[in-house]
Amino acid sequence: MRWLFALLFTASGVHAQDEFRQTLLSVAENRSAQALTISSKDVTPNAAHPWNIEVKRLHGGKQEGVTLVIVDNGVLKITLIPTRGMGIQEVRRAGVRIGWDSPVKEIVHPQFVNMTARGGLGWLDGFTEFVVRCGLENNGQPGPDRFINNVGDEASMDLTLHGKIANQPAQEVEIVVDKKHPFRITVRGIVNERMLFGPKLELMTELTTTPGAATFQIKDVVTNRGAGPEEFQMLYHVNVGKPVLEAGARFEAPVAKVTPYNKNAGRDVATWNQYLAPTTGYVEQVYLLEPLANKEGRTTILLANQAGTHGTSIRYQVKELPYLTLWKNTGADADGYVTGLEPGTNYPNRRSVERQAGRVPKLAGGVSYSMSLEFGVHLGTKEVDAVRAEVQAIQGDRKPVLVTAPTPRIP
Amino acid sequence: MRWLFALLFTASGVHAQDEFRQTLLSVAENRSAQALTISSKDVTPNAAHPWNIEVKRLHGGKQEGVTLVIVDNGVLKITLIPTRGMGIQEVRRAGVRIGWDSPVKEIVHPQFVNMTARGGLGWLDGFTEFVVRCGLENNGQPGPDRFINNVGDEASMDLTLHGKIANQPAQEVEIVVDKKHPFRITVRGIVNERMLFGPKLELMTELTTTPGAATFQIKDVVTNRGAGPEEFQMLYHVNVGKPVLEAGARFEAPVAKVTPYNKNAGRDVATWNQYLAPTTGYVEQVYLLEPLANKEGRTTILLANQAGTHGTSIRYQVKELPYLTLWKNTGADADGYVTGLEPGTNYPNRRSVERQAGRVPKLAGGVSYSMSLEFGVHLGTKEVDAVRAEVQAIQGDRKPVLVTAPTPRIP
Amino acid sequence: MRWLFALLFTASGVHAQDEFRQTLLSVAENRSAQALTISSKDVTPNAAHPWNIEVKRLHGGKQEGVTLVIVDNGVLKITLIPTRGMGIQEVRRAGVRIGWDSPVKEIVHPQFVNMTARGGLGWLDGFTEFVVRCGLENNGQPGPDRFINNVGDEASMDLTLHGKIANQPAQEVEIVVDKKHPFRITVRGIVNERMLFGPKLELMTELTTTPGAATFQIKDVVTNRGAGPEEFQMLYHVNVGKPVLEAGARFEAPVAKVTPYNKNAGRDVATWNQYLAPTTGYVEQVYLLEPLANKEGRTTILLANQAGTHGTSIRYQVKELPYLTLWKNTGADADGYVTGLEPGTNYPNRRSVERQAGRVPKLAGGVSYSMSLEFGVHLGTKEVDAVRAEVQAIQGDRKPVLVTAPTPRIP
Repeated sequence: MRWLFALLFTASGVHAQDEFRQTLLSVAENRSAQALTISSKDVTPNAAHPWNIEVKRLHGGKQEGVTLVIVDNGVLKITLIPTRGMGIQEVRRAGVRIGWDSPVKEIVHPQFVNMTARGGLGWLDGFTEFVVRCGLENNGQPGPDRFINNVGDEASMDLTLHGKIANQPAQEVEIVVDKKHPFRITVRGIVNERMLFGPKLELMTELTTTPGAATFQIKDVVTNRGAGPEEFQMLYHVNVGKPVLEAGARFEAPVAKVTPYNKNAGRDVATWNQYLAPTTGYVEQVYLLEPLANKEGRTTILLANQAGTHGTSIRYQVKELPYLTLWKNTGADADGYVTGLEPGTNYPNRRSVERQAGRVPKLAGGVSYSMSLEFGVHLGTKEVDAVRAEVQAIQGDRKPVLVTAPTPRIP
Repeated sequence: MRWLFALLFTASGVHAQDEFRQTLLSVAENRSAQALTISSKDVTPNAAHPWNIEVKRLHGGKQEGVTLVIVDNGVLKITLIPTRGMGIQEVRRAGVRIGWDSPVKEIVHPQFVNMTARGGLGWLDGFTEFVVRCGLENNGQPGPDRFINNVGDEASMDLTLHGKIANQPAQEVEIVVDKKHPFRITVRGIVNERMLFGPKLELMTELTTTPGAATFQIKDVVTNRGAGPEEFQMLYHVNVGKPVLEAGARFEAPVAKVTPYNKNAGRDVATWNQYLAPTTGYVEQVYLLEPLANKEGRTTILLANQAGTHGTSIRYQVKELPYLTLWKNTGADADGYVTGLEPGTNYPNRRSVERQAGRVPKLAGGVSYSMSLEFGVHLGTKEVDAVRAEVQAIQGDRKPVLVTAPTPRIP
Repeated sequence: MRWLFALLFTASGVHAQDEFRQTLLSVAENRSAQALTISSKDVTPNAAHPWNIEVKRLHGGKQEGVTLVIVDNGVLKITLIPTRGMGIQEVRRAGVRIGWDSPVKEIVHPQFVNMTARGGLGWLDGFTEFVVRCGLENNGQPGPDRFINNVGDEASMDLTLHGKIANQPAQEVEIVVDKKHPFRITVRGIVNERMLFGPKLELMTELTTTPGAATFQIKDVVTNRGAGPEEFQMLYHVNVGKPVLEAGARFEAPVAKVTPYNKNAGRDVATWNQYLAPTTGYVEQVYLLEPLANKEGRTTILLANQAGTHGTSIRYQVKELPYLTLWKNTGADADGYVTGLEPGTNYPNRRSVERQAGRVPKLAGGVSYSMSLEFGVHLGTKEVDAVRAEVQAIQGDRKPVLVTAPTPRIP
C-alpha cells in the first residue's frame, strides 16, 4: 500500500523531509509493533505544545498480544487499538475519561472472540471501546441474510452482530508527524475483509490531531478491491459512560425525525434525548434519527452532562453518514452504563431490513467511499455551550417529529 | 483484584512480610508469564520438605503459547494450566501419574478451539485435563436454551458442551508461599466470562498445597459481577485413566441413589462402580448419583485400582456441590481410556433440563458462591484402605438405590 | 513420533551421521521455529548445486505468528507454511511464480479463521495457497452430515468447507539434508485432527527435493490413531494463476470421462480444459474427471500457458488418488483468477454425497494410507512438450467421454 500512501501525500503537498514517519506494524515490511515512545522533544523541538506517542503491547488474560497506540497531543490522550481494527478505547482530557466501563475488563484480542457464538452475538465478548466501527460487510443485528455463493447461486448465511471489522487486526500501521506547524500527528492503518467468493473490502483509516487541540479527526476510506459491485455497511458505534453520561445528561442533535426502534423505546420517545441514572434492569432504548445539516452539509451532535460542564461531540457530513442511531443503555454500573451515538451508512437493523429500505450502499469494483468525523472533548460550560449553540443553529426552528410507533420491519 | 486478595489475607491473619509472592501474569500489571523457577532453598530454607515451582511456556503445534505452572511439593507434582482456565493437566506422585491419555496429545491453546464447531462439541478438541472445570454460564450437553437478549426479549442460543471456562485464559495469576510452617504454597488466578448483555461471572481460584503432603486443595469462588441475578453452573470434570483405572478398578462413593443417564447405562447399573479393561467400541456409560455426607456435610469419593494399591480421592462439602456424576468411558487406549468423577452444582444434562429440575443456581448481583475440594493421591493398600474406610463410614448401612431406567428429560 | 521417523530412515538405509538434521518446531521438544538460515556451503560444501533454506516468522495483520520454511534448491524456491498445515504458498523458478493472487493478501494465521462462519465457508478467509490439503475428517462442500456422538447415537453436524487440516499448525517439523549425493532435502511435519469422540487422524508429511531439480515430491501418510475404523478424505487443491494460467492456457490430463459438477459447467463441457482470460463475473466451472494411468499406475497432469512456454505438472499414482477435479475460476484478477487441479480420494461434493457414491475411504484402527505426488515446474517449449507427450502417451487412443449433464446428487 506504500504507493497509496505516497499518492495521498503528494496530493496534499507534503514531502518526506517535512515529516517524521515510523512504521509500527506491516505485512509488507514483515514487522510487528514493539514498545516505543516518540516525543515532541525529539521530533518537533520547536512545537509550542509538547506531545507524546506511546506504543505498547498488552499482556495477561484475554488481552495477551494486543497492541495499543496512545497519542497524547498535550490536551487529549487518545488510545488506539490496531489489533482491534483501529478502534479507540478511550480519550482523556484533564482527568476526564471519554469512554465507558464495559463489563468486559480486558481489551480483548480477536483470538478470544468467536463472532458466531451466542447466536451471532459473540462480538459482545470484546466490546469495550469508545469508538468501535461496525461493518464492513455488514453491521447491525445478527441473523440470516442472502449472499451469492461460489457457484453463483443465492444462498443464506447467518450474519453476526456488527460484522467483523472490529476483530480484524490492522496492518500497515504507521505514525506520521508533520515537522512544521501545526505539527499534525497522524496514525494510519489498513484493515481488511477480503476473501474469495466474499467481500474484498479494505478500510484505510487515519486518525489525526494537532498538539494542543481538544479535537481529533478520523478519515476512513472503504475501497472495494474486487472487480464486481459489493455492498458495504459502516456504523461508528461511539460509546460514552460516566462522567459525561449521568442522570439528567442530554443528547443534543439537530434532527428532523425520531423513530423508536421498538415498542419499548416507543414508550419513552418524549424523553428520547434525556438520560436516567444507572438503573438496574433498564432495557435498552434505541432511536433511529434523521439528522439535519448546516448549509455545508455538516452536522454536530453532542452528549453533555447534566450541568453542562462535560461534553463530547461529533461533527460530520450527513451525506457521508446519513443515518444516526441513539442507543440508550443506562443499566446498572456493573452491567455497563452507556449510551451510543451511532452515525452510519444505515440503521443497525438486520442487513436484510436495511437493504429492503434502500439503506445498504453498493460500491462498484475499485471504487472507494470516504467518511470523515471530528471528535471533540469539551470541558466547562463555555465550551459545552458553544457546541450546543452549534447544534441549535442547525436545528433552527425546524421541530423534530417524534414518532411513537416503531416502523414495521420487512423482512 | 488486589484488594480482594488483600482482604482474604487479612481475614486469615497472614501479613505480607510472612509470605513470598510472585505475580506470573496480570492484566492489571500488564505482564505475561516468563519461564521461572522458584524453590524452597531460596524462599523457605528452613522448610523440612524441599519444594519447587516451575513456570514454563509451551511451543509447537497447537500448544504454542500455553503457560504451565508446575508445583512440586516434594510428594506431588501438580501441573496447572493458566491458559486453559487454571485447569490441572496431571498430578504425579512417586512416578504414578493421575490423569489420562487423551487422543489429543497437545495441551491445546484456546485459539485453536472453536467451541461452536461440531454442533457445539468443539470443546473436545482441547480436552486433555485431569481436572477441567465445566461452566460458568453453562455446562453439560450442547443444545438450544433460552436467554434474555439485549432488547429484553427471551431468545434462543445454542449452548456449547461444558461451557467456556476451560478455554478462557486466566489473569492475575500469582504464586504465594508462606514463609512459616507449614509453608503453604498457593497458586491463584482469575478467570472470567463477562460481557454486555450476557453473564458477568468471575472465578477466583486458589490451589493450595503443603510441602510433603499427598493432597492439595482447590478453593473456587464464583462471583456475579453484574447487578441483576444470573444463573451459573459448575462441574468439576475429574478424569482418570491408567494406572489407577484398569480392569477391576472400583469407584467408591457413599451414595443414596444411582440413576443411569440413558438406556445404555441402565443395562449395566448393577456394575455401575466397576470398570472393564480398555474395550474397543465401548460406548460411554454415565450415572447420576446422589452423594451422602458425614455429620459435617463432607463426602469422600475414591477411585482405586484393582489391587487397591493406587487411588485418587476427592473430599468436599455436598452442600456446595450437591450432584455427582460418574462418567465411564473405558474404550480402547487409543480412543481415550478414562473415567470422570464429576461433582457439580448440577448433572451434565442440557441446561434447560437442569433448570426444569431446579438444579441451576442463580446468584444475585454481587453475590459469590464458594466451592472447596481436596484431592488426594494414595499409594499402597494402607493409604487406599484408609480412604475406603472413610467412604464406607459415610455410607454406613444406608443401601444405595439402584434405578435401572433413566429419568425422562423435559424438555 | 521420533520412532516413526527412525523407522522410515532405517527402511531407506540412511544413517544419522550421513545427514544434517534441524528440528524447527516440536511439541515433544517444546520448541518453536526461530528465524534461521541453513545453506549448502555449511552443510554440503561438496554439493554441485548450491541450496539454501530460510525459516522466518511473519508479522503484521492477520499473518502475525505464521512460520514459513523457504526451500531454495538452486532451481526451485518452495515456500512451505507449517502454521497452515504444511501447505505450500508458492513455488518459483527463474522468476516465474507458480501460485495465484488470492484476494486474501496475508498468509493468514489460523487464529483469524473461523471455519464455521459464513455457513461453513470461513475457510476461504485464509485461502491463498498454491497447494492446500483439504481433509482429513472431511473435505468438499459444507453442509450437514451424520456422525456418531459420545453416547453412540447417530447425530448430525455441519461440516465446514474443505475440513480443518489447512488451519491446523504443524508439530515435529524438521529439516533433514542428506550429506551424500544427491544431497536430498526433506522438510517433515506432523499435522493432526485428534479428539475424543471424533477423528484421531494424523498426517505425516514429507516434502523432498534435490538441489538443481525442477521437481519436488510430497509424501503424505495419514494414520488412524484411533482403535476403531474411521473415515477420512484427502484432496490436494493445487491452485495456479498467472503467468501459467492465461487466455488459451490448457489443462492436459489423460482422462476416461469428464462430468460437469453442475449445469453451469455442463454448458461449456466442450472446452472443459481450455481457459479464458480474466473475466469479470465468471462463475466457477468444475469438472469431475476419471484419470487414466500408465502401466505402472501413474498419471501425469499438466497446466500450460497458451504458448506452451510455462507449465506445471503433477505426477501420482491413480490408485492412491483415484478422483481428479478441475476447478476453473477465471474471474477478474481482483477477484482471484485461478484454476485448481485437485487429485483426491474423492470429488469435492458434500461428504454425504461422496459416501453414498462409495468414495469415502475408511481406515481401520492403526492403519495408514500413503499418497505421493511429484510436482514439476517446466520452462520453455522443450520441457513443456516433453510433459505433454507424457500425458498423451497415457491417453493414447482412448477418447475421453464428455458428459454434458451433471450427475444427480443423493442426498
